[in-house]
Formats: sequence, structure tokens, C-alpha cells
Amino acid sequence: MELDSGATAFVLIATAMVMLMTPGVGLFYGGMVRRKNFISAIALAMISFAVVSVQWVLIGYSLAFGPDVGGFIGNLDHVGLAGVGMEGDGIPDLLFMVFQLVFAGLTLAILTSALAERVKISSFIVFGLLWTTLVYDPLAHWAWGGGWAHQLGALDFAGGTVVHISSGFGALAAALVIGKRIGFGTHSMEPHNIPMTLLGGALLWFGWFGFNAGSALAADGLAASAFVVTNTAAAAGALSWMFAAWLHGKPSSLGMISGAIAGLVAITPAAGFVDPLSAIAIGFISGLVCYKAMLWRIKKGLDETLDAWAIHGVGGFWGALATGIFATAAIGGVDGLLYGNYAQFGIQAIDAIAAVIYAFVVTYILAYVVHKTIGLRVTEEEEYVGLDISQHGEKVAN
Amino acid sequence: MELDSGATAFVLIATAMVMLMTPGVGLFYGGMVRRKNFISAIALAMISFAVVSVQWVLIGYSLAFGPDVGGFIGNLDHVGLAGVGMEGDGIPDLLFMVFQLVFAGLTLAILTSALAERVKISSFIVFGLLWTTLVYDPLAHWAWGGGWAHQLGALDFAGGTVVHISSGFGALAAALVIGKRIGFGTHSMEPHNIPMTLLGGALLWFGWFGFNAGSALAADGLAASAFVVTNTAAAAGALSWMFAAWLHGKPSSLGMISGAIAGLVAITPAAGFVDPLSAIAIGFISGLVCYKAMLWRIKKGLDETLDAWAIHGVGGFWGALATGIFATAAIGGVDGLLYGNYAQFGIQAIDAIAAVIYAFVVTYILAYVVHKTIGLRVTEEEEYVGLDISQHGEKVAN
Amino acid sequence: MELDSGATAFVLIATAMVMLMTPGVGLFYGGMVRRKNFISAIALAMISFAVVSVQWVLIGYSLAFGPDVGGFIGNLDHVGLAGVGMEGDGIPDLLFMVFQLVFAGLTLAILTSALAERVKISSFIVFGLLWTTLVYDPLAHWAWGGGWAHQLGALDFAGGTVVHISSGFGALAAALVIGKRIGFGTHSMEPHNIPMTLLGGALLWFGWFGFNAGSALAADGLAASAFVVTNTAAAAGALSWMFAAWLHGKPSSLGMISGAIAGLVAITPAAGFVDPLSAIAIGFISGLVCYKAMLWRIKKGLDETLDAWAIHGVGGFWGALATGIFATAAIGGVDGLLYGNYAQFGIQAIDAIAAVIYAFVVTYILAYVVHKTIGLRVTEEEEYVGLDISQHGEKVAN
Repeated sequence: MELDSGATAFVLIATAMVMLMTPGVGLFYGGMVRRKNFISAIALAMISFAVVSVQWVLIGYSLAFGPDVGGFIGNLDHVGLAGVGMEGDGIPDLLFMVFQLVFAGLTLAILTSALAERVKISSFIVFGLLWTTLVYDPLAHWAWGGGWAHQLGALDFAGGTVVHISSGFGALAAALVIGKRIGFGTHSMEPHNIPMTLLGGALLWFGWFGFNAGSALAADGLAASAFVVTNTAAAAGALSWMFAAWLHGKPSSLGMISGAIAGLVAITPAAGFVDPLSAIAIGFISGLVCYKAMLWRIKKGLDETLDAWAIHGVGGFWGALATGIFATAAIGGVDGLLYGNYAQFGIQAIDAIAAVIYAFVVTYILAYVVHKTIGLRVTEEEEYVGLDISQHGEKVAN
Repeated sequence: MELDSGATAFVLIATAMVMLMTPGVGLFYGGMVRRKNFISAIALAMISFAVVSVQWVLIGYSLAFGPDVGGFIGNLDHVGLAGVGMEGDGIPDLLFMVFQLVFAGLTLAILTSALAERVKISSFIVFGLLWTTLVYDPLAHWAWGGGWAHQLGALDFAGGTVVHISSGFGALAAALVIGKRIGFGTHSMEPHNIPMTLLGGALLWFGWFGFNAGSALAADGLAASAFVVTNTAAAAGALSWMFAAWLHGKPSSLGMISGAIAGLVAITPAAGFVDPLSAIAIGFISGLVCYKAMLWRIKKGLDETLDAWAIHGVGGFWGALATGIFATAAIGGVDGLLYGNYAQFGIQAIDAIAAVIYAFVVTYILAYVVHKTIGLRVTEEEEYVGLDISQHGEKVAN
Repeated sequence: MELDSGATAFVLIATAMVMLMTPGVGLFYGGMVRRKNFISAIALAMISFAVVSVQWVLIGYSLAFGPDVGGFIGNLDHVGLAGVGMEGDGIPDLLFMVFQLVFAGLTLAILTSALAERVKISSFIVFGLLWTTLVYDPLAHWAWGGGWAHQLGALDFAGGTVVHISSGFGALAAALVIGKRIGFGTHSMEPHNIPMTLLGGALLWFGWFGFNAGSALAADGLAASAFVVTNTAAAAGALSWMFAAWLHGKPSSLGMISGAIAGLVAITPAAGFVDPLSAIAIGFISGLVCYKAMLWRIKKGLDETLDAWAIHGVGGFWGALATGIFATAAIGGVDGLLYGNYAQFGIQAIDAIAAVIYAFVVTYILAYVVHKTIGLRVTEEEEYVGLDISQHGEKVAN
């Protein structure tokens, strides 16, 4: 129960880096939407973060990390951060709390992409509060707070189920409830500012080092290993998506950065369990699988607008399974399928499927209830005008 | 007198993060000005930083942190960094020096906002050098270099008076001297690029973790506590300004990010002394108070152009008082008014008022002298054309 | 052979910061090209990083840091990171590996600037792989992997020869092979988005703290000293270039940021060996020398497009010499010319000249071979249309 100043230094900065991912997500998505919704995309991400920052301090941390209630949720012992202090084991308890806070904020920010260009800001805030409390907090408890998945031995180093499956499959559900954008499938909806998307993606890549390596909660060899496989999977994903898309056209920068994110998502649960050569495989496959998922989504005419499902949902699912395949005891103490431990693969599959079902169903219900009561969607006219003006009274001048 | 590698690691990175706040300020303000002054706004911030970087090494650090002369200023023992070496207590002396340097550079960058869209670049450099030497350096000495405020027991964890009151009330004085922009109050002067302002604001939020938590000068529980209250106050400020503005219109992203900065400013002096629930109150109130200050400034027809006074000045003043209200000995060893220590509140008020008066009066004199000798302001034609072309010979192409 | 958690924390974050320099380079150059090549400039940088990330894991690290073969190259012991683990001396071996990886990726990204606005993306990937393997990896081995320059006693703290001379003189060679852009010298090719260049430059400045201070591989007084001289040289370079350009016109922000980069380049090899006042001289002179180099390049009608040669090549050469002039044993254990050690200056000159020759000649050959086989350059029509559309099928919408 002593603090380590190196570990504390590392996690302090890692927390700041993960915080920067939220505006990174805002820019990433903001570049992809139409110009009239650029401000809105960034604002949705940052407002998500602000709302969750307060929610987490008041109740969210306690629900996720309070003493276990039935394997499902934490109790209310830490409401208002009661009992969360400057002491801790390796790092201060308050630091662990805020490291988890920035994950929670980011996850809701990812989910906003499904509602882009048509969500009502007031309703989003209500929905976001409910979602974080009823979807994110339980999932965090399952994996990291002593819940059933943790008890079962499921591996999720930095949030494959908690962050990516939850936001990705949540995004799919929310998109189905809110419905397609006007003109989807008939009008051009090209990204308006790809350089901002690339900048946002770069901030995500940067912050992901804090996200994955920081999840070691120590500045040690495991953190270094997590850092290395994170970068390796990102690069492999960038290249595989880019080359796959190249076969049917040109190597778009959007494909390259989407592939990098796909690789980063997939390595997230595996980051503390696999070696660099496995990371190449995990990232490479993730780029291909997420690319295919996006093509399928488009073909089906689904307006899951900015592909959170294809990248975070599918990539997160693949990552959960991949952890069960490539994990090696030499890194994180647990072997996967390739090293003869078939059971771990089964556990990973159960964990991932449970997360998919829970995130999809509960998100669907929450979005539906909000939609049918206060309305999740702006009016047609507001959508035509764009959310920047209709929701925020602002616009990007020429 | 031994180094701690964790503390050193933390403050090294924190320093880099605070350095990044200066271009963050440039983008934050650059997005708010008209397009013809976009480059100028960023350049003013970065030139400020470059000028102060050299000033600080040559003389500024010595004036601020050299052995005390009469409670007012440091002596010249450390001119050219004489006697500032690689050894130190916890962290190297050179690191403490450069951590302080990035604060000084940032503070001048904040002040540029008052002169935006009309300042002559040559005169600004002269003014900036004078201002840093005669306003910033003494104020830093008062609070942190062993000056009278320190002797009195005033609390300023990370720069409420030194950074925010000084730049905020300095901005007010400078704006009064340079006068309103042509067309102020009659022509539209809408922000031209809010996404850049949001990106800049996000970099500020990110860097502020280095600013406030780094001010612990150690990677420990106090740093973690400062980190937590920093984020909490930012979020609370973002929400309170946004909701307050919503009552009279729409929840602008500019209000949200301005409120976040207001919260960050107010928590700055308090960061090492208050708990998270107090941070909610401090940030929430700061968002409201700074918003009201901005409305008052607009109503009065003051062209304190980008509201450094309303946010940094008023927010910094509130933060100094709030430290005297909410401080708890459980965190930083000193109680405030809420915990029965009325004297601390009085000390905070004296400190804040002295900083207000000193910053306002000396800035006014300096600006006035520069204005009456070499002219602080560009010609009317140069102002019409914009500073990008008239001062830098550059423009943002379409 | 024990890990230090503070050192590990510091180098972990420093690595992330250097990674962020690659998109920083992309924005820096992207703002300088014409709008039709904006996406391409960023994409080239990021694709470089992705390609090198995989190359380094598979073979590059072993070539650079494997057991020495004849003073020229490392052997294949570490192919696929064999034998590179979580243990290490001070920091984990894997962390040292990835810290070196981000340098390698960045260096290729700098080199892309010479080919801007006319390079074929497919050929660039081939060229980049060859270049990293045959130019970067040997140069890294010479200086840091136990090669001849290291054996000779040449000082290169953070990559003056390895990163800057290699990319700068490589850029010159590549530009000569690919030839001028259509319309060069007759059509206006003004930077289209200087704010992005300033943002990119700011990210470089920020990341450079990780680059130079991180090269101490410890969180100690030497890292702090390297941090201080890095910032000081950057500021001095920014001011000297700005003032030099001012004599002939206006103080452009592009000159200011170019000067900052020039200062940063020059201090790179010297960062662990010189004191702050020397850093002022090194940076100040670098700003002037690189500025003059740029003027000479323009006068000669060379389309070394974005001045990687003038800034990284010339600045890196100056830095290598300056290290031999200003080094003081009080900082890094070795004296330079100013402290009576003439031999060190000679060693630095030999090292720098060898790097210049090797980088220029081998890059020329590689570029020539690629150019004559698969063609380094797009068609005339593709160049007119711009690389965003012709190479990536994307564009920045209005």
C-alpha cells in the first residue's frame, strides 16, 4: 500500500493523454460530417466528457468500482468519492478514479457518432447520462470492478468490451432508433474536412498509448510491452485496411486512419497479454475485418453514421476473441488458444457476446424511451439547416 | 536534496504540456478573431513564448526566484541561470526553472488577446518584454519566490494571481489603452473558426493537468488530487456556463469551452487545497460569474476583445477567494473559511486585490508609455486589411 | 540491470510525444503545400510512420541495434524483436526499441517533404522501405548501435546526423531525382493554410522535448538540462530567423516557426552536452544559417520543396559542429573546442561529413532506381489535379 512515484507519474500523464482523446474523437468525427455539423460533432464529444466527468465523481465511480453487488454492479460506498483518497497501492486511489473517469467520458464521445447530424442536444444529454449510468458503469464493473466477467477470468486489459463493444454496439442500437439522416443513400455526404479527421485520428493514436500502456497502472516492462503492441497493431491495421481498399480503388487516407483505429481497438483488450508479432496479426486482421464490416453496413443501407459499430464494435469483438487466441503467459500470465489454453478462448467469447447483447439491448431501450418521450431527433428543418446553427447557434464562417 | 526520478519524470512532461498551452491559446483566440487576423493571433502567442523563453533564461528567473529583495523582487544572483544546475531537491533546479518559464510564456500569450486585431507586432514585442519583466516577474516573486504574499501566507497553488489575475486585469488595462477595434459595436465580429477555438480549448484543458498537478512538483497523492479537482472544476464550469447561456438562447460550444476555461482558471490557485465536491462548486460558480462578467463587459461597450478579463481576471479573482473558502487541511494543510479559518479568507482577499491593482496599474502605465512613444496600434488601413497581411505579410488562402 | 520506474515513465511518455511529431510534420508540411495536396502531405507522413513501424519490428531494430558487423550495421539477432524483452537496464528493452522506432518513422516523414505535390504513393512506399532500411538503419547503427562513429567518439545526443542530416540531405537528393514541380518558379505556390503549419510546428516543438530530453533515457538532471537547452535554442532560432527576415520585409509567422525548427534541429545532437547560454548561441546561429540556406536554395532554383535540406540538413550539420564547439564536460562529460578540446570538433566534422555523403549518395541511388523502374512521380495530369484526388481519391471540401 505504498505509492510508487514513477507509476504515479506515468498514470497521471496517461490520464491526461486519454482525456485528449475525447476532443480527438470530436475532430475525427467532425472532419467526416458535413460542414454544417462540424461544430456539433466536436461539441457532442466534449459535452459528453463534461457530463460524464461530473456523473463519475458523484455516482459513476461508485457504481463501477464500489464493492460488488451480485456480480453486476458496485454499491454506493464511494458516492461523491467518499473514501477515495490520496493514498493507494502503487498509485493514489484518486488517480485510479480519474484514470477510469477519462475512459468513461471517451466512451460516450465515441457513441455520439451514431447520432451525428441529427441528434437534439438536450435529449442527448439526458440519454448520455442514462447510458453512462446504465450501460458503461455496469460493464466497467463486470470487467474491472470485481463483477462476473472478472470472476470468470475474462481478460480485458484496457477496455475491449467496456469501451469498444459497449460504444460500438451501443452505436448500432442508437442509430437504429434515431433513424437515417434525411437524404441518406441519395445525397452525397462526403467528409468535408479530412485533414481534421487525420488530426483527430493522430490524437487518438497518441492518446491510446496512455489508454493501453497506462492500464498497466505501473511504469514497468508490462507497460512497455503494451505500448509496443499498441503501436504495432495500429500500424498493421492502417496498412491492411489501406491495401484492402486499394484493391478496389485508391488508398484513401480515411481508410488508412480508420484501419489504424481498428488495429488500436482490437489490441486494446489484448495489450497486456500478447507479443509484438501477434500484434501484427491482430492489427492486420482487424483492419480487414472492420473494413468488411463497413462495406456490409453500407450495403445494408444502415446509417450507423460514422462506423463506430464497424470499427469499435466489430474490432472490439475481434480483439476480445484475439486475446483468447494470442495471449501468452510469458507476457501477462495467461495463455490463449495458440498456446493450448482453449478454455480462455471460450471465456473470451462468452464475455464478448454478453457485452454485445447487454450494450445493444439496453442502449436500444434507453434510446427508444428517450426518443418516444422527449424526442432524440431534431426537426426536419433543423436537420437541413445543420446542427451547428440549429442546436448551438453557431457556424463555421467561410 | 536528492532527486526523485518519478517526480522528475512527471514535471518534465508537465512542463511540455504547459508549453503546448501557448499554441493552444493561439488557436483558442485565433478561431475567435476574424479570418484576416487568424495567423496573427497564433503568431502573437508563439512569439510571446519565444521572447519570454529568452528573457526568463537571461533575467526573468532571477527576478522571480532569486533571493528576496524587500519582499518585492528577486535579486540578480541567477542572471543567465548562474547557479541553476542539474541537482535539486526532488527535481533538478533547471527543471523547476523551465517549469516556471512555460508559465511566464503562457501568461503573456493570454494577454495578447486584449490587443487582438489591432496591435503592431514590433511594439508588442517591446511591450511584452517590459510586461513580463515588470508585471509577471514581481507577481511570481510575491507568490512563489519568497515575496510578501508568500510571507503573509497567501495560497496560490498554480497561479491564480500570478497567471490569471495578472493577465486578466492586465488585458483590461491594455484594452483601455489601445482602444476599440474599428467597427466595434456596429459591425459583426463573429468568431470565424470555432472548431479551432475548441481544439485550442481542448489543448488548454489537457495542458492544465500539467499546470495544476505539475505544481505539486511531485508525483504523489497531492498531484493526483490536484488533477482530479482540475478536471472536475473544468467540467462543472463548462456545464454551468452552457446552461446559463441556454436560458437566454442556445447552448453554444463557445460558451461550453469558455466555461471550462473559467472553471480551470478558478481551480488553479485552489488545486492543492480543495476536495472534488468543492471543485464542483468552484467550477460551477466560476462558469456563472465569468459569464455574467462577459455580459457586463459587452453591455458596457468595452472592447476587451476576447474576454481575458472576464475569464482569467474575474475567474482568477474568484479562485483566489474560493481557495480561502473551500481549502481543507486534509488536502493541503490549510483550512479555509468553511472550515472555520476566517483569517485565510482575508489573506486571500488582500493578495488578490493587491494583484489586481498592481497588474492593472502597471500594465496601464506600460501600455500607455509604449502607445505614446512607438505606438501600440497599427494604422487604420492596416487594421482594415488585417494583421496577417499588414504585420506578417501572410494570409490564409481559400 | 534493474528498471527505474521514473525513467520508464518518462521514456514511455517521451515516446508517445515523439510519435505525435509525425502527424505534426504532416500538418507542418500540409499547411505549406497547395490545398489540392493537403491530405496527401499528412497521409505521406502517417503512412511513413505505419510502414516504418512494421519494418522496425521485423528487421530495422536489429539492423540498427543488433550486435555490430564491421562498424557499419547490426546483425540479424533481433529480427522480429527476438531477445528484446520486458527487462532492461533502467528502462525495459522493449521501451528502448519503441523509442527508437518513433525516431525512424519521423525521419522518413520529414523526407516526404522533398517529394511533396508530385510523388506517386505506391512508389513512395517502396522507396520509403528501402530508404529506412539502407539509409536510416545504418546511420542509427553508426551513432548509437555501436558503429564506427560511436567508436570514434562522435557525439550525437538525439539524432543530429541520424535524423536531421539523413533526412535533410536525403531530401535534397530525392528532390533532384524527382525534379521540379510543374510551374515551379513561374506559378505562385504560396502556403495555403499557415495556421495548420503553425499547429504542426507547435506539435513538433512539444514533441521535441520527448525527443531530446527523452534521449537521456532517464528522468534526471541531464534530461532536465536537455529539456532546457531544447526550449532555449528553439526560442533563439525563432527570433533570429524572424528578425533576419524582418530586415528584408515583414516578420512572417512561417519564418518564426521555421527558425524554431532550425533551432531545435541544431540543438538535437548537442542537447546532452551544452549549457543554456550556449543554446542561445546555437539556436540563434541556426536560425540565421538555415534562413540563408533557404534563400540560396530559392536563388538556385532548386525545388527542394519544403526546405527540409535548408532546415534539417544544414541545421543538423551546424548542430553536429556546434556540439564539437560548445560541449562542456560539466554537462555531458566531454569538452568541445571552446573548452580546449580541438579533437572533438574534428571528430564531429568527420561524422557529419560522412553522414552527409552517405545520406545524399545512397538516397540519390535509391530514388533513381525507383524512378527509373516503377516511376517516383505522378503523371502531369495527376499533378495538375493534385495528389489528394489522384492518389487518394479524396479532397478537402469547401
